Amino acid sequence: MPQDNNTKTPVTVIGLGAMGSALAGAFLGAGHPTTVWNRSAGKGEDLVARGAVRAASAAEAVRAGDLVVVCVVDYDASAAVLEPLAADLAGRTLVNLTSDTPERAREAAAWAAAAGVDYLDGSVMVPTAVIGTPDALLFHAGPRAAYDKHEQTLKALGGHTTYVGEDHGLAAVYDLSLLDYFWTAMSGLVHAFALAAADGVPAAAIAPFLKANAGLVTSIVDGMAAEIDSGSYPGAEANLAMEVAGIDHIVHTAERRGLDATVLRAVNAVARRAIDLGHGADDWTATVEAVRKP
Amino acid sequence: MPQDNNTKTPVTVIGLGAMGSALAGAFLGAGHPTTVWNRSAGKGEDLVARGAVRAASAAEAVRAGDLVVVCVVDYDASAAVLEPLAADLAGRTLVNLTSDTPERAREAAAWAAAAGVDYLDGSVMVPTAVIGTPDALLFHAGPRAAYDKHEQTLKALGGHTTYVGEDHGLAAVYDLSLLDYFWTAMSGLVHAFALAAADGVPAAAIAPFLKANAGLVTSIVDGMAAEIDSGSYPGAEANLAMEVAGIDHIVHTAERRGLDATVLRAVNAVARRAIDLGHGADDWTATVEAVRKP
Repeated sequence: MPQDNNTKTPVTVIGLGAMGSALAGAFLGAGHPTTVWNRSAGKGEDLVARGAVRAASAAEAVRAGDLVVVCVVDYDASAAVLEPLAADLAGRTLVNLTSDTPERAREAAAWAAAAGVDYLDGSVMVPTAVIGTPDALLFHAGPRAAYDKHEQTLKALGGHTTYVGEDHGLAAVYDLSLLDYFWTAMSGLVHAFALAAADGVPAAAIAPFLKANAGLVTSIVDGMAAEIDSGSYPGAEANLAMEVAGIDHIVHTAERRGLDATVLRAVNAVARRAIDLGHGADDWTATVEAVRKP
Repeated sequence: MPQDNNTKTPVTVIGLGAMGSALAGAFLGAGHPTTVWNRSAGKGEDLVARGAVRAASAAEAVRAGDLVVVCVVDYDASAAVLEPLAADLAGRTLVNLTSDTPERAREAAAWAAAAGVDYLDGSVMVPTAVIGTPDALLFHAGPRAAYDKHEQTLKALGGHTTYVGEDHGLAAVYDLSLLDYFWTAMSGLVHAFALAAADGVPAAAIAPFLKANAGLVTSIVDGMAAEIDSGSYPGAEANLAMEVAGIDHIVHTAERRGLDATVLRAVNAVARRAIDLGHGADDWTATVEAVRKP
């Protein structure tokens, strides 16, 4: 049976950029009374047309919501809006979905604790088009009780709304770690396309094999995680000493074609340092030891 | 109905390291009369026990096979074995599955052409344990007619035995391009685990999200390939200028934790050069332009 809107938690969304608007739209779509505010005027017409209330001030916006979600450009911007409103925020739950570093999230949490504001820090891991769908991944960190109280409301933003721990920095830690992998992999994909193209192979011809290769990566993540957590990296058929020799072939082949190979050179330099640390007969995961000793 | 062995192409395998032995085992398993030879003695007992014939010399081995497969440490080693045997190889098909660069494959093909030897150059993309299974991927390049003549025999090595073109260098081009992506992605995975661990997040906790992320990579390969092939990289919601700012957050967060960040610094340096080339409002794939202008 559909719930009446009056039984749903009133939500406030501060910041109506592309992501903030998508968040507010998802709350509206789930039937939450939704109040919105943006520092500069002229944003949110579409949300008002869908039933949102546009507040005349940030303070008015905050007072309208039991859950206050902020999504602005960075933590300087969120602090500028929120810190003057400590008294209005007290007794409400504040969720900051602005992207920044773990340090900034912890600083914001320290301010919120001093101000008596229940505070969760979150990270949005998907583009705006995915917000509000079962596929959307968002991380939340901070007091478990605050998360539990609002979990059903936050799940309006995405099916994979996930709590990662009490430390307010953890949502950003998960965020940055996943993006660390993602952008490095994106760099590798573009470079693979460039290397193939240098010998006349279209990207479309090698794409099916790159997709299979990316699927292979998926299948070995758990095994790598177990080695990293145990600090033991036993090499089997392959080992670091063989692998750096193979990577040299790629670097030289790229450079002979006039391509930049600085990324893969850096990859191999880290691996060589792991060999120097005694891991030549170990698995690739042993490179984590060189990452930790720059 | 199972074929009698006598109807199957006789195969010779030269080089009985871990991979060569796996290749010979796959031919035996598919019922091919299989002759083996290794430069140093004491290899191949297990293959002989399974029905292989061990030749007394490389020349004797070559003369026993219609298809001669060589898999040794590098092209210096394969040339040392094969070049004295040009007369024995004439009229047979030689497949070199040794790993090396496109240039070495083309040099070997030039020698084979001068010697009147039908020559295919191949790359094995899977570990020995996968050889002979439906999942095994091998690339072959060289004259289409030579490949077609032996395709059924070569498919004994793997279900994904694939012909990639007349240019003998192409098997190595596909090989190195895929490994270019693979090792860069492996570096990103290890670094992501290190970054998460620095704030107390076990690798096992972030692994499920890294797997989902690697799956996401799979889903965007075709779209990236289309942009690379067209040379047009229109940015939509995200663009390079925003992305390098986000990557800076990751680099600084890693370095603040005492981690090496040279790989991601190199990734971002390439992206910044793409911005300098006028691609700041473009999609990530525009970084290919900076890869091509080191």
